[in-house]
Amino acid sequence: MINFKVIFRILGHLLVLEGVFLFLSFLVALLYQEADIQAFAISTGITFAVGISIAFFTRKFSKDFGKREGYIIVSLAWVVFSLFGTLPFLLSGAIPSFTDAFFETMSGFTTTGASILNNIEELPHGILFWRSVSQWIGGMGMIVMSLAILPMLGIGGMQLYAAEVPGPTPDKLHPRVRETAKRLWGIYILLTAVEVILLWIGEMNLFDAVCHSFTSMATGGYSTKQASIMFFQSPYTQYVITFFMFLAGVNFTLHYYVLKGRPISVWKNEEFRYYLGLVLTFTLLISTALAFQQDIWGGGFQKLEQAFRDSLFQVVSIVTTTGYVSADYLLWSPIALVLIFSLMFVGGSAGSTGGGMKVVRILLLFKNGALEFKRLMHPNAIIPVRLNHRAISPAIITNVLAFIVFYILIFVLGTIVMALLGFDLDSAMGSVIATLGNIGPGIGSVGPVENFANVPAFGKWFLSFLMLIGRLELFTVLILFSSAFWKK
Amino acid sequence: MINFKVIFRILGHLLVLEGVFLFLSFLVALLYQEADIQAFAISTGITFAVGISIAFFTRKFSKDFGKREGYIIVSLAWVVFSLFGTLPFLLSGAIPSFTDAFFETMSGFTTTGASILNNIEELPHGILFWRSVSQWIGGMGMIVMSLAILPMLGIGGMQLYAAEVPGPTPDKLHPRVRETAKRLWGIYILLTAVEVILLWIGEMNLFDAVCHSFTSMATGGYSTKQASIMFFQSPYTQYVITFFMFLAGVNFTLHYYVLKGRPISVWKNEEFRYYLGLVLTFTLLISTALAFQQDIWGGGFQKLEQAFRDSLFQVVSIVTTTGYVSADYLLWSPIALVLIFSLMFVGGSAGSTGGGMKVVRILLLFKNGALEFKRLMHPNAIIPVRLNHRAISPAIITNVLAFIVFYILIFVLGTIVMALLGFDLDSAMGSVIATLGNIGPGIGSVGPVENFANVPAFGKWFLSFLMLIGRLELFTVLILFSSAFWKK
Repeated sequence: MINFKVIFRILGHLLVLEGVFLFLSFLVALLYQEADIQAFAISTGITFAVGISIAFFTRKFSKDFGKREGYIIVSLAWVVFSLFGTLPFLLSGAIPSFTDAFFETMSGFTTTGASILNNIEELPHGILFWRSVSQWIGGMGMIVMSLAILPMLGIGGMQLYAAEVPGPTPDKLHPRVRETAKRLWGIYILLTAVEVILLWIGEMNLFDAVCHSFTSMATGGYSTKQASIMFFQSPYTQYVITFFMFLAGVNFTLHYYVLKGRPISVWKNEEFRYYLGLVLTFTLLISTALAFQQDIWGGGFQKLEQAFRDSLFQVVSIVTTTGYVSADYLLWSPIALVLIFSLMFVGGSAGSTGGGMKVVRILLLFKNGALEFKRLMHPNAIIPVRLNHRAISPAIITNVLAFIVFYILIFVLGTIVMALLGFDLDSAMGSVIATLGNIGPGIGSVGPVENFANVPAFGKWFLSFLMLIGRLELFTVLILFSSAFWKK
Repeated sequence: MINFKVIFRILGHLLVLEGVFLFLSFLVALLYQEADIQAFAISTGITFAVGISIAFFTRKFSKDFGKREGYIIVSLAWVVFSLFGTLPFLLSGAIPSFTDAFFETMSGFTTTGASILNNIEELPHGILFWRSVSQWIGGMGMIVMSLAILPMLGIGGMQLYAAEVPGPTPDKLHPRVRETAKRLWGIYILLTAVEVILLWIGEMNLFDAVCHSFTSMATGGYSTKQASIMFFQSPYTQYVITFFMFLAGVNFTLHYYVLKGRPISVWKNEEFRYYLGLVLTFTLLISTALAFQQDIWGGGFQKLEQAFRDSLFQVVSIVTTTGYVSADYLLWSPIALVLIFSLMFVGGSAGSTGGGMKVVRILLLFKNGALEFKRLMHPNAIIPVRLNHRAISPAIITNVLAFIVFYILIFVLGTIVMALLGFDLDSAMGSVIATLGNIGPGIGSVGPVENFANVPAFGKWFLSFLMLIGRLELFTVLILFSSAFWKK
C-alpha cells in the first residue's frame, strides 16, 4: 500500500516553503510599489493556507516511507510547485493564459529557462524576481534530489558515487537527507551570494545582480532582459557569469571538498576533468570557427577576445544547460552550430544543478565502448568499466546505457510529436532538446533570440512534460507510468 | 601472429570471383556494342591476373584461422572489391576521378546506393550493369557475413540466433560457412530471378528488370535512371519492387523456413512481426499525413492510392535501406519527413541484406528499457530480456546497447565532420545517416532528387569510410583500430 498520507504531508510542507519564497517576492513588489503587490499577497496567502491545511490534516501519519513514496514525491513536488507558482502570473495578469503560465513556471522550477514572454522589460519587478527565484528553488531542489534522494532510488549518475553516499536504508533516510541538504545548500547560498557581489560591482544594479545570480547558479537561464546577456555587454560581467555557470555545472560534493581544503580531490575526479576538457575543447573549436567565419585575424586583440568570449560563454551556457544568450549562435557557421547542437545533449555533471544526460554518463559510454573491443577479443574475460579507479558494476553500466538510449528515444519521439504540430525538422529537434535537456533556447524557430510563445497549447503542455522528465532523470517520472510500479 | 598468408589467399580467391562478374559485365558491353567494351576487357584481365597470382603465390599456407584473421578479411574484402571495382569506371572514362569512382563502387558493394553521377541515362549498358552487379555481390556477401561469419566473431544481431547458428569452433568453420552460404545464396538467386520475371512482365525491358532486381534484392538502390523509380510510374512495377525490397529486408533464414514448408516459424519470429508492424504503422501515418497535406479526400480512389503507394514505397525503401526514390519526400509535410528521417536509423532485419541498426536491436532496446523499471523496483532480482521466448544474456544486451550508442556517436561525430566541410545541419546529418545506414539518399542537399556529386573530395572519402563501417556492423572495422586487437 502506498502511504499517500506521508506524501501529502511532505507536499504540504513544501508548499509552506514555496509560500515563503512567494512572500519574499511580495516584499520585492512592495519595495517597488508596482501593480503586482496584490497578486503576490493573494498568492502567498493561498499557498500558505493550502500548505498549512494539508500539514494539519495529515498530522497523524505512519512513518512508512519507501521507494514508491520517494518516486511519487519527487515527481509531484515539481508539478505542485509549478501549479501554485502560476498564481502570481495569472493574478497579476502578467501571463493571462493558464497554459502559458504553467509552461513558464515549469520552465522555472525545472531550471529550463524556456520562456513564452515577449515583453520581459515591461513586467513588474516582483514578477521578474519570482521567475528568478523559481529557478533558484529548482536548483536547490535538484541538488538535494540528485545527491541525497535519487541515489537511494537507484536513479541518476550519482549512484556511481556510492562510496560517498551510503545506500538506502529506510530508517536512515531522514537524518541523512537533512544533513546532506544543509551542507550543500550552504554552498549553494554562499556561491550565489559571492556572485551577487561580483555582478553588482560591474554594470548590473543590485536587482539584476540578484536575479542573474539566482538563475545562473541554478543553471536556469531566465534573465530580466528580453535580450538575455546580450544586454550586458561588458566583458567583466560576461566572464563572471561564465565562471559561475561553470561552477554550477560541477558536482556540488566537489565544492564541499574545496571548502574542506581538499582541492586535490577535485582534480582526481574524472568527471570534472572531462567536463573541463570538454568546455575548453569546444571553446577552442568554436572560437577558431568564428575567427575564420568573421575573418578577424586582422581585427586585433579586441575582436579575437570577443570571438573567444562569445564561444566560451555559449559553450558553458549550453553544456551546463543554463541557456543564457550572449550571441545568436544560429548565425554562426555550420560547424559552430553543429558543435553547439551536439553540446545540448551532454549537460552538466552529476550532482550539479545542470540538466542533460550528464558528463559522467557520456564518459562511461566512451569507456564502455572502448572496452567492447577488448571484450570481443576476449569473450570469456570479465572486463569492468573503471571510474575514478573503481570498477563499476555491469548493472550500473546497463542502466547508464539504457538511460542514454531512452533519452535519445524520447528525443526522437518528441521530435515526431513536434513535427506533427507543424514544426520543421530543426525547430522540432530544437524545441525537444531545449526542454528535455532543461536548456531553454534551442535551434530553428525556438533559437536564442526567439522563444516558445508561438508553440500551440498542446505543444506547451507536451514540452512542459519533457522539462519535467528531463529534470528528474527520466526514470523517476516514467516509472510512475509502468506496471511494475503499481504491482504489489 | 596474424596469418597474413591465408588472408591474402582468400582475397585472391575473392578477386577471381570479382573477375567473373566483371567478365559478365564485359559480355553485356559486348552485346550492346558500346564504348566500354575495352574498359571491361582490361578490368577483367587485371582482376583475374592479380587474383590468380595471389592465389598462386600463397598456395602453401597454414590453416591457422582465428578471429583476428576473420576481422581483417571481412574489412579488407569490401575495400579490395571496391578498389578493383573502380577499374571499369576509370578506364571507360565514365567516372574520370579516382575519388568519385571509389565512392561509387564502395557505395555499390556496401549496397548503399549513394551516387555521384548526374548523367546516368548517358552511360553505356555495361557500366550500368556493373553498378547493379556490384550491389548484388555486396548483398550476397552480406548474407554470408551476417549469417555465417559475423556470429562467429561475436558481432551483429545474429549472435541472438545462437541456437540456429552454432558457436565458433575453428575446425568446423569452413564446411559450415560453405553449406550455409550455398543454401542462402540459392534463395537469394531464386528471389532475384522471380523479381526479374515479374518486372519484365511490367513496363521494364529485360535490362532494367535485371538491374533493378539486382539492386532491390541487395537493398542497394542504384537505378538505371537518373530519376530512380520515379521513372517507372506504373503501380504494378512499384508494388512489385516494394514487395521484393520488403523480402530483402527479412532475415534470410526465414525465407529458408518458408521454402522448407515452415511458414509458421516466420510468424513466430518476433523481429519479423515488429518489422512488419513498423512498415505498416509508418505507412499508415505517412499516408494520413500526405492525405491531409494534399487534401486528397475529395480526390477519389486514385489519389488516395497514390498517397498510400508513395508512402509504402518510401517507408519500405528507407527501412530496408534500399534508397530507391518514387517521390521527393523532402516536399512532404514536416511530420512525414521526420518519420522518414527517423526510419533511416532503424534499418532492416538482422541477417537480411538491409543496413542500419537493425530492427532486432531497436526491439531489444525497447524491451530492455521497459525492464529497467522492473529492475529499479526490484534491484536484487535478475530480470533477463526475452526474445522469441528465450532469455538473452546480459553480455549480449550490453553489446546491443553499446552498438546503438556507438552508432549514434558516430552519427554525431560524422555530422560534425560534414558541418566542418560547410554542410548545413540537415545536409550534414542527412549525408552521414544516408551513408552510415547504407541507405543512399538522405535529407537536405543530399536528398532524394539530389546526390553526392558536390561533396568535396575529403567528404567523399569520409563518407565512403562510413559506408564501410556501417555495412560491417561498426565493430568489425573499428576493432582493427583498437589496441586490444593488435596486442598479443
